[in-house]
Amino acid sequence: MSDLQTGMPSTRQLQHAIKEKQEVELKLVTDDLIVGKVKWQDPDCICLVDHYDQPTIVWRHAIAYLKPKS
Amino acid sequence: MSDLQTGMPSTRQLQHAIKEKQEVELKLVTDDLIVGKVKWQDPDCICLVDHYDQPTIVWRHAIAYLKPKS
Amino acid sequence: MSDLQTGMPSTRQLQHAIKEKQEVELKLVTDDLIVGKVKWQDPDCICLVDHYDQPTIVWRHAIAYLKPKS
Amino acid sequence: MSDLQTGMPSTRQLQHAIKEKQEVELKLVTDDLIVGKVKWQDPDCICLVDHYDQPTIVWRHAIAYLKPKS
Amino acid sequence: MSDLQTGMPSTRQLQHAIKEKQEVELKLVTDDLIVGKVKWQDPDCICLVDHYDQPTIVWRHAIAYLKPKS
Amino acid sequence: MSDLQTGMPSTRQLQHAIKEKQEVELKLVTDDLIVGKVKWQDPDCICLVDHYDQPTIVWRHAIAYLKPKS
Repeated sequence: MSDLQTGMPSTRQLQHAIKEKQEVELKLVTDDLIVGKVKWQDPDCICLVDHYDQPTIVWRHAIAYLKPKS
Repeated sequence: MSDLQTGMPSTRQLQHAIKEKQEVELKLVTDDLIVGKVKWQDPDCICLVDHYDQPTIVWRHAIAYLKPKS
Repeated sequence: MSDLQTGMPSTRQLQHAIKEKQEVELKLVTDDLIVGKVKWQDPDCICLVDHYDQPTIVWRHAIAYLKPKS
Repeated sequence: MSDLQTGMPSTRQLQHAIKEKQEVELKLVTDDLIVGKVKWQDPDCICLVDHYDQPTIVWRHAIAYLKPKS
Repeated sequence: MSDLQTGMPSTRQLQHAIKEKQEVELKLVTDDLIVGKVKWQDPDCICLVDHYDQPTIVWRHAIAYLKPKS
Repeated sequence: MSDLQTGMPSTRQLQHAIKEKQEVELKLVTDDLIVGKVKWQDPDCICLVDHYDQPTIVWRHAIAYLKPKS
């Protein structure tokens, strides 16, 4: 992974979510809400997987916010 | 924190809000309004926590403006 | 202020507005219209204050245009 | 003007419009349509003036397209 | 291809989709949904082709997310 | 032209469209659809001309996708 800034809090929180298999909600600038577990992150994208293990690759520029699944 | 430009007024105001546990309103480009205390900032994101201490990680590119909670 | 390009016309007009305490209108990509005096600018943000001296920190990426208050 | 790439066709067309006092239409990502003569450009912004010589400073990131006034 | 970061998971998943001729769904920030096989990617764009082999060149900045065709 | 990356597929396809005087459709993030022949491209913009040879200079950041005119 080339440019991922592993020292940033946001990167570390995502790494934590990956490790702990936490469910999260991603609100997108399109108003879509994507719910799932974080599978991986890279400098451009974050990948969530749903209950059927289907992946959705979300571009970071399209993310408004991330919350733990309530 | 790699690239946070601590000399910029906007960064300093956010650091001030973190230290003083100020409540702020973040208006997003999605028209969402997120209210809470600023927990941390990094070059990509700002984290707010609500009254139940639940975090919301907001991407800076999605922020329109920030105001003190009125 | 690290990267503010003080030679650019747009930066200079904003500095002029700060010095002259001009009222301006900022139209945002959210269609919000923020009216006030420009308090400060940095490479990421522009801060307006309203009649009650309440600040609004606006991210530049969210600005569509700026006009003198009509 | 620090970074304006004067060799680019888009920059040159704008310089031409400034010199010739051409009226143009700027369509913004907010769907606003700004009509006027181009007064100046810099790497971040383009300034149009209307019939009353009132300026509007438009951020480039908010521009969708530019056409000669029809 | 100048800057394509071939080590990133998102780039590799797209290369995999190209090689395997997988159908994918691209959700755009305009809310358009483009369905097709990934033909190529470069640092700015991703090209999908439909059943009639007609190409659509999609700019990455306009992509919200990508999913395998369900 | 300073920074145009002529080796990228997207740049080459646009050069091809210019040379062949192909009609294309540009879908913008504003949902506008611009139809015409590609006259020139530079790192920031793409210029289309309509049947009356009227130019529209489109900023790349506002483009969602490009298709051959159907």
